[in-house]
Amino acid sequence: MHPTRWGDPAGAAPLPEPARALVELAFGVTDSPAATAVSLPAPALDEAVLAELRTAVGDAHVVTDDAIRRLRTRGKSTPDLLRARAGDLTDAPDVVVRPVGAHEVAAVLAIAVRHHLAVVPFGGGTAVTGGLAPDREGYAGVVSLDLRRMNHLVEVDPVSMTATLEPGLLGPEAEALLAEHGLTLGHFPQSFEHASIGGFAATRSSGQASAGYGRFDAMVVALTAVTPTGRLSLGVAPASAAGPDLRQLLLGSEGAFGVITSVTVRVRPIPEAKVYEGWRFATFAEGRDAMRELAQSGPLPTVLRLSDESETALSLADPDAVGGGASAGGCLMITGYEGSAADVAAKQTSVTALLTDLGGVPGGEEPGRAWAAGRFKAPYLRDSMLDVGVLVETLETATFWSRVEQTYADVKAALGASLPGALVLCHVSHVYETGCSLYFTVAARATEPAWRAAKAAATDAMVAARATITHHHAVGTDHKPWLAREIGETGVRVLRAVKAELDPTGILNPGVLVP
Amino acid sequence: MHPTRWGDPAGAAPLPEPARALVELAFGVTDSPAATAVSLPAPALDEAVLAELRTAVGDAHVVTDDAIRRLRTRGKSTPDLLRARAGDLTDAPDVVVRPVGAHEVAAVLAIAVRHHLAVVPFGGGTAVTGGLAPDREGYAGVVSLDLRRMNHLVEVDPVSMTATLEPGLLGPEAEALLAEHGLTLGHFPQSFEHASIGGFAATRSSGQASAGYGRFDAMVVALTAVTPTGRLSLGVAPASAAGPDLRQLLLGSEGAFGVITSVTVRVRPIPEAKVYEGWRFATFAEGRDAMRELAQSGPLPTVLRLSDESETALSLADPDAVGGGASAGGCLMITGYEGSAADVAAKQTSVTALLTDLGGVPGGEEPGRAWAAGRFKAPYLRDSMLDVGVLVETLETATFWSRVEQTYADVKAALGASLPGALVLCHVSHVYETGCSLYFTVAARATEPAWRAAKAAATDAMVAARATITHHHAVGTDHKPWLAREIGETGVRVLRAVKAELDPTGILNPGVLVP
Repeated sequence: MHPTRWGDPAGAAPLPEPARALVELAFGVTDSPAATAVSLPAPALDEAVLAELRTAVGDAHVVTDDAIRRLRTRGKSTPDLLRARAGDLTDAPDVVVRPVGAHEVAAVLAIAVRHHLAVVPFGGGTAVTGGLAPDREGYAGVVSLDLRRMNHLVEVDPVSMTATLEPGLLGPEAEALLAEHGLTLGHFPQSFEHASIGGFAATRSSGQASAGYGRFDAMVVALTAVTPTGRLSLGVAPASAAGPDLRQLLLGSEGAFGVITSVTVRVRPIPEAKVYEGWRFATFAEGRDAMRELAQSGPLPTVLRLSDESETALSLADPDAVGGGASAGGCLMITGYEGSAADVAAKQTSVTALLTDLGGVPGGEEPGRAWAAGRFKAPYLRDSMLDVGVLVETLETATFWSRVEQTYADVKAALGASLPGALVLCHVSHVYETGCSLYFTVAARATEPAWRAAKAAATDAMVAARATITHHHAVGTDHKPWLAREIGETGVRVLRAVKAELDPTGILNPGVLVP
Repeated sequence: MHPTRWGDPAGAAPLPEPARALVELAFGVTDSPAATAVSLPAPALDEAVLAELRTAVGDAHVVTDDAIRRLRTRGKSTPDLLRARAGDLTDAPDVVVRPVGAHEVAAVLAIAVRHHLAVVPFGGGTAVTGGLAPDREGYAGVVSLDLRRMNHLVEVDPVSMTATLEPGLLGPEAEALLAEHGLTLGHFPQSFEHASIGGFAATRSSGQASAGYGRFDAMVVALTAVTPTGRLSLGVAPASAAGPDLRQLLLGSEGAFGVITSVTVRVRPIPEAKVYEGWRFATFAEGRDAMRELAQSGPLPTVLRLSDESETALSLADPDAVGGGASAGGCLMITGYEGSAADVAAKQTSVTALLTDLGGVPGGEEPGRAWAAGRFKAPYLRDSMLDVGVLVETLETATFWSRVEQTYADVKAALGASLPGALVLCHVSHVYETGCSLYFTVAARATEPAWRAAKAAATDAMVAARATITHHHAVGTDHKPWLAREIGETGVRVLRAVKAELDPTGILNPGVLVP
């Protein structure tokens, strides 16, 4: 269904001519370091352990092949791609184990506890913050717990408008199964094609249509999880006052507290109509004010996105992505409407009136169509950019509206100071009544250490501005050094206490999330 | 501002003649057991401990008077009222301590840890599930930590549309302070007049306008709390992927994990227009189907409530509560719209069309006005009913739409079987896309033990129907025996682990929430 994947040299999108020209303009002559072919370290596990795992999940589902292990090594951040290119496969798992059902997951965890194996739950493998690169120090080996065989639509409840999904379903697979019932989840992050339902839950993913469908964690009404010390089944009602909402403790737990074995999500009818449009605002600040007005007065479109001046200029430099209606300059906003024809028309009328009042210039449907056509493509370009020696990476944050301006300025300044000559682009990708996210794309002729220093400076700037260190990319290992500055030492102690209770021997994704 | 309080004989509403006639009709001749005047057990604390507390918060704010301690004894459930009437004041605190600010709260907790005193955070005192009656066994004494002096509006952020409130503010006080800025919280539970902001957060309260404004836990974007082992400050953005949402662990924690010292909530402009209307549906099931359609297709009114046949008949038997437009029979639905005049008109048009399509008969504004006028009054009647020997109590649940019918039938049957001759009324008070709540009112000539047995049977029925044991009344001590059946033993272990980490000596509301 999706033969090519990010970080797979065979699947890299060829760099379009306009982009190549842009790269040459911005960064000068290009070179192309070839990926190094290196073989993996031999699996560290002895035959007795492998035999136990085979008993748990079946011979065919305990895999030690280099090719498979290589595909389960780390995630898809640009540093991950660079290390793969450099032949650094030190984080490869020793074995890939493919359970089916909560019972097999529990059996694998029991074996892992007995032999002190680190277990890395693996869904789509699109992690971009180091969530798939656990500490292996002190462990007898690393098991990649590949959940791809757990790919069923377990139940549809058309009255409650919920569906129970297994964690290994990829975005398009889940949508195809729901479509047979006339339903959609409406969750379309940029990683949609390759990411899994379990991953969406474990990382608090947020999709491009979040203004209309909500964040993934807001869609989850129930979940089940297997931990090394017991199972969890949470959620018997949309909302409850029966103590703290423990669903919210598993959502965002990144495999460190348990393995999510199913989620029950709110679903909606497949929209009858979809319309995407472009708008132009004179400045990023004016566009943000208009977004805030929409979020606070309503109604919101289903998709709402605003590029800053730099990102607008860059996307307009690519003829494939430019609508005739959106003339150069200013900032491009995308508004999308999905629903019944009547709903779409009503919302479009209302939003059009408000945006026009607030200084927006309508750009028609062409920019909207261009955005929709390219909405999942950006990550594929990273490989082609690396081929020509340009590192492209993203980072994101969110805060309350009153702090957005300062956060934007400070993060941009930090990136600019750390990476002179870099292109720094930004868009607002998710809005709420009380605030919004900021999603930065950075392109620079830089080494991995230089990138890491720049990212550290940007994250320091977020913390100083009292913005979150990540709005939808999770903590992983990359953001962990900053987590205590966001949730405090007491918050970290709570995470450690929950971890110690559910996973007392620390086999689950060690070193990820919990400082 | 609110001189009369529930459970205060002086503040009891006189039983209106129609209600008295109804009571006689339903339960026969009335009698009036007089409340017994009993004095409190002497405070168990020695002078040295009191002196430490005085140093922490000031002499005037360490109170051992009987009158004050009596008012801080238990909450306002009907069993609480009955025990107070019976002269059972065994749960009275030894001392009432009134701190100001997180620093004083921390100082009091430190003293409590040193002397092993149980600490009961106290806001408005309207708990109805035993959350203010902790275990005193093994403790040197019980401190009622009265938060009423922490009653400030700390900050308004008109750009982000948030406000930071202290926990001791009562509902009307918070609304009055916000009104000075043209803002409202929109949180109006039946306890609104007497309940506190901290209580709303600690119990996951939900208000009568939840369809429009959301539950209280959905309004909270940030909070601070003091625990015996450190402080928490959570929430730097509307949403985040920086690990599990720890705000959701404090919301609903009922004072057992920490003392909430501030909440930052999403606020809205004071609505320009408010319209409340009545509708009649032939059956409760038809009305619920219409509510579900509204919740799933939108737009929702701000207030949406549906009484079953019995509750409709009873309210229509009271001339004060009946609109001329709603003729007898069927089920009364209340729809309320709040917002700009244009928004109200647009929503009203859209909802009217949908409800008419679904078989609703419009009853005009009179039933809506009657509902709005009486919306906070029901609890006052309990005292008058007790005076005539009739116990009135409420219980509530929620589940997904597909299980609502069965849950309604089973809970009603359980109550009917336990309390022959009881009046059992029900309404849907809160709706979501995936489900709704059911709020039962029971009136019976019954003793407290008979009521407890009936409530246990009803709660068993909820668990068996896979509905939550409480949608918005919290766990307290009353629901604790059922919590493990809702969140599982593993879920209970998580709560215990968090409790042990934050409150290792177990001084915070011991015996409440955590089994």
